[in-house]
Amino acid sequence: MRIVCPKESLAEGIGIVQKAVSSKSTLPILEGILLEAYDSKFKLTGNDLEIGIECFVDADIREEGSVVLNSKTFGDIVRRLPDSEVFIEVKGDNLVIIECANSHFEIKGLSATGFPALPAIKQENSFKISQKLLRDMIRQTIFSISLDENRPILTGSLIECNEGTVTMVSMDVFRLALRKSTLSEEVNDFSVVVPGKTLNEISKILQPVDDEITVYTSTNQILFDMGNCKIVSRLLEGKYLNYKSIIRHDAETRIRVNVKSLLSSIERASLVASADNKHPVKFDIKDDKMIITSNTEIGAAREELNVETTGKELQIGFNPRYLIDALKVIDDEEAEITFITNLLPCTIKPVEGDDFIYVIGAVKI
Amino acid sequence: MRIVCPKESLAEGIGIVQKAVSSKSTLPILEGILLEAYDSKFKLTGNDLEIGIECFVDADIREEGSVVLNSKTFGDIVRRLPDSEVFIEVKGDNLVIIECANSHFEIKGLSATGFPALPAIKQENSFKISQKLLRDMIRQTIFSISLDENRPILTGSLIECNEGTVTMVSMDVFRLALRKSTLSEEVNDFSVVVPGKTLNEISKILQPVDDEITVYTSTNQILFDMGNCKIVSRLLEGKYLNYKSIIRHDAETRIRVNVKSLLSSIERASLVASADNKHPVKFDIKDDKMIITSNTEIGAAREELNVETTGKELQIGFNPRYLIDALKVIDDEEAEITFITNLLPCTIKPVEGDDFIYVIGAVKI
Repeated sequence: MRIVCPKESLAEGIGIVQKAVSSKSTLPILEGILLEAYDSKFKLTGNDLEIGIECFVDADIREEGSVVLNSKTFGDIVRRLPDSEVFIEVKGDNLVIIECANSHFEIKGLSATGFPALPAIKQENSFKISQKLLRDMIRQTIFSISLDENRPILTGSLIECNEGTVTMVSMDVFRLALRKSTLSEEVNDFSVVVPGKTLNEISKILQPVDDEITVYTSTNQILFDMGNCKIVSRLLEGKYLNYKSIIRHDAETRIRVNVKSLLSSIERASLVASADNKHPVKFDIKDDKMIITSNTEIGAAREELNVETTGKELQIGFNPRYLIDALKVIDDEEAEITFITNLLPCTIKPVEGDDFIYVIGAVKI
Repeated sequence: MRIVCPKESLAEGIGIVQKAVSSKSTLPILEGILLEAYDSKFKLTGNDLEIGIECFVDADIREEGSVVLNSKTFGDIVRRLPDSEVFIEVKGDNLVIIECANSHFEIKGLSATGFPALPAIKQENSFKISQKLLRDMIRQTIFSISLDENRPILTGSLIECNEGTVTMVSMDVFRLALRKSTLSEEVNDFSVVVPGKTLNEISKILQPVDDEITVYTSTNQILFDMGNCKIVSRLLEGKYLNYKSIIRHDAETRIRVNVKSLLSSIERASLVASADNKHPVKFDIKDDKMIITSNTEIGAAREELNVETTGKELQIGFNPRYLIDALKVIDDEEAEITFITNLLPCTIKPVEGDDFIYVIGAVKI
């Protein structure tokens, strides 16, 4: 293999595929990046067997071939090279020469033969979505993914295409986060569950731009196709919980509230909570006032907020962490919160439309 | 005690004195900030018995008094308050009321009686220096302070006033860093050794501005007086090493080099060094070229640099970490490096003047 490519695009490609490279593996080859130069194309691949990412980098191919280089060493070197053309050549015994301006490196590589190939995806279903929207949908739901490995299906997010809308849902025992969007074209109905780790890595790669990406799914795999860059991940097996049964549409008390003000008040009130973060904050809703209080061994906090109330007076308690997580990702200025009784969860929704729903379980006060 | 003050100045004052508060102490009072309102002045004090910081905050004193509040709780609350007037009142049993807009806190405080007073300094010697210059002098020498507790005197920096100049020196077994500056007025000759921890905290408080601060020293203490804010620290006991004997002025080989280019080359060459960072980089100086090489089990690196050479050809090895630390803090575009033999340390100096000197021991190659 012998190629020449600009340092910037090479560094960018490495940055992307590194998100799929194990930093600590028992197999040295899984700590590597596969470099392949064939058919006038230069491709980088990272694959930790959970997620695989391949990325094409513009390069001048002078001799075809392939090699695997340790991801950390290769990335650290390329990032520090001067902004110029980088020359990469594989000599005998997988010795790799990297040259750029007055810098010359010789790095021991590994044979490409042992590198695990990315699984081919039978493209059964697909939908198109802008990078920005998918990025927002992940950000606005990912925090509710369960960390409990005893219920593996909840360690991922549901992606559901149904009647022209795509819905992303995450939940654990205490809360649910849902984000919905209309698709620009009709697609087959289907649903899959994507591991939280995959979504986390993808959200770092996605840019806040309007460029569309295509998402393909098969029974076991999902492929995010960004053109020059493809991300493949396994899916979680099993059936996701019937999340619709958790979302209630009735309400005895409704408040309309400024999201940022409520967030600040809860954050302050939770400051007197001890480090274990188990002390609830209490809402006292009466007339058009909401009093938020918290009492612990450290002291007491009391916050007063103007809200628009409809329905009954209510006193209810919540884990402040769960409220904060949800309020932080809402971009709308105002939101509606509905309550049934002080034993049942509350529901946070947009004032208009149904783009998002957060359900948060009440705690005893 | 009852006071009112703007949130911003209170938060700023807390941020400063927190640098002298233990985060984990066996004595709860040492995790606290002392609040004192006397003689129309509102003062915050933090003191971990090594460093003490007091800071005056503009406030309207409505009733004199004092109390100690847990530093983390107090700081977290104030930082999150809305940008408005903060009202603080101490009730019976040291219960502290904090109010701001619609937020109300009641925090359990401690009696001010048990708080350790800042030591009074017998102001024997002093000099004036701009915040920016002192900040630079610390940044440009602090990294050479020894971490070896077996030679406690080297865990601090020497500050020496002599014949109208102030010199700061740090050293360990492998290297020395010296930064010198002319004083604007004549002062007594004296020298003290300031703990590295103190310098580290002070450099975070100092701003890159021309405002002058006054440094006072006595036998055991040093006081940095910034007007509204005073920092007191103990000094290290004992005599500092005779650093002048380490600085050689003779040279067999001299090079003049671009600092940033040399830094980049060494950083790249050291990338093939293994994690233990013990692999030397080798300089090969011949004619007006310097070849920097590094060879490890990972691979080999070779960098070529144009330099202006005077004197003999030379091959010499260094720990790249020590060279990088020194080159990173040099603000000059070019520097001169002098060598005697490949067994003796090199000296890095400005091309003109003697504002800084770095001495770095050679390693066997």
